[in-house]
Amino acid sequence: MKLEERAVDYAKEALKMHREWQGKIRVTTPCVLTNKDQLSVAYTPGVAAPCLEIQKDVEKSYEYTRRGNLVAVVTDGTAVLGLGDIGPEAGMPVMEGKCALFQAFAGIDAFPICIRSKDVDEIVHTVEMIAGSFGGINLEDIGAPRCFEVERKLKERLDIPVFHDDQHGTAVITVSAMLNALKLVGKKIQEVSAVVNGAGAAGTACTKLLMALGLKNVVVCDRNGALVPGLPGMSDAQAQLAEETNPQRKSGTLAEVIRGADVFMGFSAPGVLTGEMVKTMAKDAVVFACANPTPEIFPEEALAAGARVVGTGRSDYPNQINNVLAFPGIFRGALDVRAKEINDEMKVAAAKALADLIPQEELSETNIIPSAFDKRVVPAVAQAVAQAARDTGVARA
Amino acid sequence: MKLEERAVDYAKEALKMHREWQGKIRVTTPCVLTNKDQLSVAYTPGVAAPCLEIQKDVEKSYEYTRRGNLVAVVTDGTAVLGLGDIGPEAGMPVMEGKCALFQAFAGIDAFPICIRSKDVDEIVHTVEMIAGSFGGINLEDIGAPRCFEVERKLKERLDIPVFHDDQHGTAVITVSAMLNALKLVGKKIQEVSAVVNGAGAAGTACTKLLMALGLKNVVVCDRNGALVPGLPGMSDAQAQLAEETNPQRKSGTLAEVIRGADVFMGFSAPGVLTGEMVKTMAKDAVVFACANPTPEIFPEEALAAGARVVGTGRSDYPNQINNVLAFPGIFRGALDVRAKEINDEMKVAAAKALADLIPQEELSETNIIPSAFDKRVVPAVAQAVAQAARDTGVARA
Repeated sequence: MKLEERAVDYAKEALKMHREWQGKIRVTTPCVLTNKDQLSVAYTPGVAAPCLEIQKDVEKSYEYTRRGNLVAVVTDGTAVLGLGDIGPEAGMPVMEGKCALFQAFAGIDAFPICIRSKDVDEIVHTVEMIAGSFGGINLEDIGAPRCFEVERKLKERLDIPVFHDDQHGTAVITVSAMLNALKLVGKKIQEVSAVVNGAGAAGTACTKLLMALGLKNVVVCDRNGALVPGLPGMSDAQAQLAEETNPQRKSGTLAEVIRGADVFMGFSAPGVLTGEMVKTMAKDAVVFACANPTPEIFPEEALAAGARVVGTGRSDYPNQINNVLAFPGIFRGALDVRAKEINDEMKVAAAKALADLIPQEELSETNIIPSAFDKRVVPAVAQAVAQAARDTGVARA
Repeated sequence: MKLEERAVDYAKEALKMHREWQGKIRVTTPCVLTNKDQLSVAYTPGVAAPCLEIQKDVEKSYEYTRRGNLVAVVTDGTAVLGLGDIGPEAGMPVMEGKCALFQAFAGIDAFPICIRSKDVDEIVHTVEMIAGSFGGINLEDIGAPRCFEVERKLKERLDIPVFHDDQHGTAVITVSAMLNALKLVGKKIQEVSAVVNGAGAAGTACTKLLMALGLKNVVVCDRNGALVPGLPGMSDAQAQLAEETNPQRKSGTLAEVIRGADVFMGFSAPGVLTGEMVKTMAKDAVVFACANPTPEIFPEEALAAGARVVGTGRSDYPNQINNVLAFPGIFRGALDVRAKEINDEMKVAAAKALADLIPQEELSETNIIPSAFDKRVVPAVAQAVAQAARDTGVARA
């Protein structure tokens, strides 16, 4: 049964289970509080002692409170799943789900914060006001281009990791899969020509991370075709991306700029890549069609048109590009060394560690990325991220 | 061993245990997430179904998310214990402790939010921005008079309960103990003359709640003596209190206005009530000395000076006026009926329910209030609060 048919069942099951769960998070305590002495240690008067220690040295908040293992999952509810702007309360099931994943995959305490505002500065200010309770901030489902500004300003103002998963988590997985796909087809990232379709959060971050790894020849397209300096209707972020990419200053539609490309990465809309377009790509083409649940092109069609490696966001096809492969390990590593930020080196380290979990001899057209349930994933990513944090001087422990 | 001697041990033990606990809260999940189908129900694509239901009807957030059992414990860190303004991070151990108590005593998921601001409007705005994630707001350790404004504005803007525990929790317990003390000494609340020392959060709230129960003859004192209209140096809140209390417009020091009083309630500073002053009170005087850990007068001394019933905030004397008797049951009741607010009627109901747990025949000079570990407390308070919410039309379920 394909995902489309199962989706109806998932929806029904999800309503039933969500009513049963009554929320997907619980806030509990490791303290036993059944007599006066226990209360006097966990609460007054004993609790004054750790308070005073933290007052003297704020870093002690990592020892005496939950902060060091606590991540806020922050949204404004404007880009929830494919549902668009559904508001903070309606975004909560997704945020709670994300928190559940943080705990289930990486033992991280994550708490959902849904902000009732669409104003960049108001969102930034709210997070800034409450950041002292947390060891890290995971931004989630905030629409582009607002998400870029929110992240940039928060990174400037906070000394804890701020990570927009829709950008960087997606980028890390995609880059990781791309590294293995290129290894498989025997092409070098410095030499391939790539087309990224979708100039939103994921497409932009993915393009930038690939460029940090050496990709030069990349054209980013959105609905209006290839981003090229001077194209009308671009946001500031897109205009900057146009400057940094598209070295040959190509213009035109996706169908036009994809001719001869080695690589296609879509973070856009269902069905926008046709078999006809794939046929015009280079030999041994790699196609990642990440629109979810309905990809830019279905794997059968892409393969029939000559693509050699195909990845999607779907669990019912091989090579699932699934964010749960990245964010748990990335935050685990960052928290473990009390990193001040999550920088490009840490993301690159995560992507490489993930790719390296599949040794050359196991690489195949249907096996370029580990399963989300592979127990090696989180420790491998966490260790690589922690090491990169130390190497780049952003670790505090 | 008295509390003063034990305090040193509690501090040492607290540091050790806080390091061991690594925080007193945990965010966990009831979801099992070990295969793709489970992920598809708790997260994408299944999670879209409850999101859409909530988008259609925001009340559904109480069914499909944790909101209905989730309370934010909010502070600005300015009035933490007796430690004063120690900032948001240093306030966290107390807030986490409070959250632990919410869970241990009432099965409520509570999460600490420490706000980095001392500005009323900034605090209010921050809470307003994140309130969609929560079913209730417990304000904690915010200094007076700022706490009054913060609470008033939040109550105006939010349709979930907002409760400043330092005011109303303390008031409920004190009123409850007072009801039983007056029953014991055979005096009527409408007829007694009372002195409240301390015109901060607790003293103000306690005075108002007793007045809601019929107390007329009450004088509130602060450092400068009895609050009376025209007294210089009063805050707006104190000036209003001066108008509403002190019907005989007495002025003078605590020592002057306490002569002949039936009741003393202190929420002020160590040792400010002397035996000499107690000697001038009426026969069968009731003295609640709630400054913590060192009360306005120690019980031995008050009793020796002729007081008949004495209560303190301490666990090593009888009649402990302990907030943990009130806030868990009050929020439990409010959440159970999705109350829009916690009004005076609900607080009065809580105080009466708590008092009624000690039947007339068990009342004595050393038994006017139940133990914090009495298992009947939370259900009794919760039921009374829920009923009062229904009776006053603020229940939504």
